[in-house]
Amino acid sequence: MNFRPKARKLPGAFAAATFSAPALTLYANARTPALASWNDGPAKQAIASFIKEVTDTSGTKYVEPLDRIATFDQDGTLWVEHPLYTQATFAIARARDLAPQHPEWQQRDPFKAVLANDLAAMAKFSESDWEIILAATHAGMTTEAFQQLVKQWLATARDPRFHQLSTALVYQPMLEVMDYVRANGFKTYIVTGGGQEFVRVYSQSVYGIPPEQVVGSSILTKYEHQDGKPVLMREPKVFFVDDNAGKPVGINLFIGKRPYAAFGNSLGDSQMLEWAQAGDGARLTMLVLHDNPAREYAYGPATGLPDTKVGTFTQALHDQAKSKGWNLISMKNDWKRIFTFDK
Amino acid sequence: MNFRPKARKLPGAFAAATFSAPALTLYANARTPALASWNDGPAKQAIASFIKEVTDTSGTKYVEPLDRIATFDQDGTLWVEHPLYTQATFAIARARDLAPQHPEWQQRDPFKAVLANDLAAMAKFSESDWEIILAATHAGMTTEAFQQLVKQWLATARDPRFHQLSTALVYQPMLEVMDYVRANGFKTYIVTGGGQEFVRVYSQSVYGIPPEQVVGSSILTKYEHQDGKPVLMREPKVFFVDDNAGKPVGINLFIGKRPYAAFGNSLGDSQMLEWAQAGDGARLTMLVLHDNPAREYAYGPATGLPDTKVGTFTQALHDQAKSKGWNLISMKNDWKRIFTFDK
Repeated sequence: MNFRPKARKLPGAFAAATFSAPALTLYANARTPALASWNDGPAKQAIASFIKEVTDTSGTKYVEPLDRIATFDQDGTLWVEHPLYTQATFAIARARDLAPQHPEWQQRDPFKAVLANDLAAMAKFSESDWEIILAATHAGMTTEAFQQLVKQWLATARDPRFHQLSTALVYQPMLEVMDYVRANGFKTYIVTGGGQEFVRVYSQSVYGIPPEQVVGSSILTKYEHQDGKPVLMREPKVFFVDDNAGKPVGINLFIGKRPYAAFGNSLGDSQMLEWAQAGDGARLTMLVLHDNPAREYAYGPATGLPDTKVGTFTQALHDQAKSKGWNLISMKNDWKRIFTFDK
Repeated sequence: MNFRPKARKLPGAFAAATFSAPALTLYANARTPALASWNDGPAKQAIASFIKEVTDTSGTKYVEPLDRIATFDQDGTLWVEHPLYTQATFAIARARDLAPQHPEWQQRDPFKAVLANDLAAMAKFSESDWEIILAATHAGMTTEAFQQLVKQWLATARDPRFHQLSTALVYQPMLEVMDYVRANGFKTYIVTGGGQEFVRVYSQSVYGIPPEQVVGSSILTKYEHQDGKPVLMREPKVFFVDDNAGKPVGINLFIGKRPYAAFGNSLGDSQMLEWAQAGDGARLTMLVLHDNPAREYAYGPATGLPDTKVGTFTQALHDQAKSKGWNLISMKNDWKRIFTFDK
C-alpha cells in the first residue's frame, strides 16, 4: 500500500492461485541440492558460512533454533518487479474491470491515465494518485472477496516480456536460499512494502511461506455483519506502511524477534538490513543486484547503467552496502539461472 | 493497552523472566497425560470430539494441518485476572518507581490515586486515565528496555492472595488444552486485549507460545538512532487495540487465517468466538466461567453471584453463549485443579 519512496512502483506481489498445480510444481523444484542454482563465489560463500556459524553448537555464534529468523523483501528480491510491480498491474486491471461502472473515470485523473494505458503519465503518479487507485480497487469489499479477486487474476494474467504467470517469475536461487535456511531451522518471513493480504494469497504455494509469516502493508479492516454473518470489510484507508523504517517496526510488531538474516534489493530495505545487522553474533545481510539485462533486468548505479528510477538500487544504497559490509548478490555472476524455465 | 470495555481491568499479562527455571518447570508439568486435570464432562467431551473430527482424514470435517489455528484470550482464560490485571499491577508498580522523578504526581490525577493505593478511586478510572498511566509507564523507552523492566518485575512481584509469582497463576487445565491441540497439529496463539510486547516477554516460557504467536494491543514504535545504533522507541500513543471487534481484525492482520478453536472468558472475546464459529466445518468455541471462589474467584451472573463489574462474564455474554451454543468451562465442575500448586 506504499508508493512513497519509489517512482512508478506499487507494492509488489504476483502469484498464482493458492495451491494451484503450477505453483506447487515450482516450489517442489526448489527441493533439490542446496543452492544448486548458485555459482561458487562470495555470495554463496557468505550464506554457507553464516549457516555454519549459527548452527555450530560448539561455536560462540550458535543461535537457538527458536531465534532463527530470516526475512525477505519480495519485489525485486524474490520475484520480478519490472516493468511494474505485480500488484500495480493487478490494480490497473481491476480499474479497467470497474471502469464501466464509473464513466466519470474516463475524464478524471488518475484513472484517465490508467484507462488510456498512458505509461508515461503513470510513471509520474504521486503517492496520493496510487492511494486513490488503491482505494478504488483494493477496498470496499470483504477480505474473502478480495482474496478471490487476487486468486482469479493471478491464474490468468501474464507478464508482457516473458509471457508467464507472475508466479513463474520468482527467482529460483532465492527459493533455494529459503529452502536452505529452513532446512537449517530458520523460520522464513516475507517482509514487503506490498500488500500483506495480496501476498498471503500465494505465499504458501509459491514460497512455502504461510500467510502468518507474511508481513506487509495493510489497509484498515472493519468487523461488520452482512446478512447476519460476520465479515471483515476492507476500508479505503491505509493502516500500516511496511517499508523503509516501517520494516523494522513491522518486524517487531509481527514477529517480535530480530532477524539474523535479511535479504532485500532496494533503498526501502536498508533499515531492515541495518536492524538485522545491529544484533549480536553472526548476521547475514544481502542485497540482490539486478545486473542481468539478457535474462532479467539491469538497473541501479552498480550496473554501470544510468539509474532509471524504476528500480531503487540507488547510489545511496550502493554506498551504504559498501560501508556497512552488506553482501551483494549479482544476478549475473552469482546465479546460474534466474527462473525455473531458464536453460 | 485497552481498558474501554472493562471496569478496573488493564490489559492483563503476568509472567516470569523468559526461560526462567520455574516457568520452564511449570510448562513441563503440562506434558503429562492429555487433559489430565479435567473431569469427564461436557467441556472435556467437546474438546475431544472437536479434535477427533478435524483430524479424521476419512471424515467430512477434516482440517489440513496448515489450517489448524487455535486462539486463546489470556486474562481470565489462561491466568488469573483478579483483583487487577497483572499488567495493571505492573503499571502501578512502575508509576511508584518513577514517582520520585515526578513530585507533581502526588497532587495530580490519576497518579495521585495510584500512589496513594486508593483502590476505590482506581476502580473508577476511565479509559483515558489508564492511557495516561500507560503513556507514563510503558512508553518513552526502547523496546529492549521495556522488555527488561517487565522481566525484572515478573521475577519478583507476588500476587496479594496466593503470594505467588504471576507466572505460577496460570490455569493448569488450559496449559493442558494448549498441549493437547498442539499435539494434534494446531498452532496456538494468544489473542489478548493486553499489551502484545508485555505478553511476549514470557509467552514462550510460560505457555510454550513464541512471541510471533502473540497478538495483542500495541502502542506506536518509532525507528531511531541512539549513539549510532538503531533502536525502536515506544511512543505514548496507542497503535492497535486488540479487543472486542479488534480481535477478529487482529487475527486477520497477524495470522491471516480463521481459527477453528477459540477460547475466552469475557465480553471482549465474543467477536473472536463469533468469527471462529462463522467458518465452515467443525468449530470449537469455549468460555471459561469463574465459579470457584474457594480456589480462584467467582464473578458474572452465571455464578448466581451479583455481577461485580470486575470480571466481564456479563449477562449479555451468558445469553450470547447460550443462544450460539458456545461451550462453557466451569472452573468448579470441569477442572480437578486450577493451579499446579493445588493439591
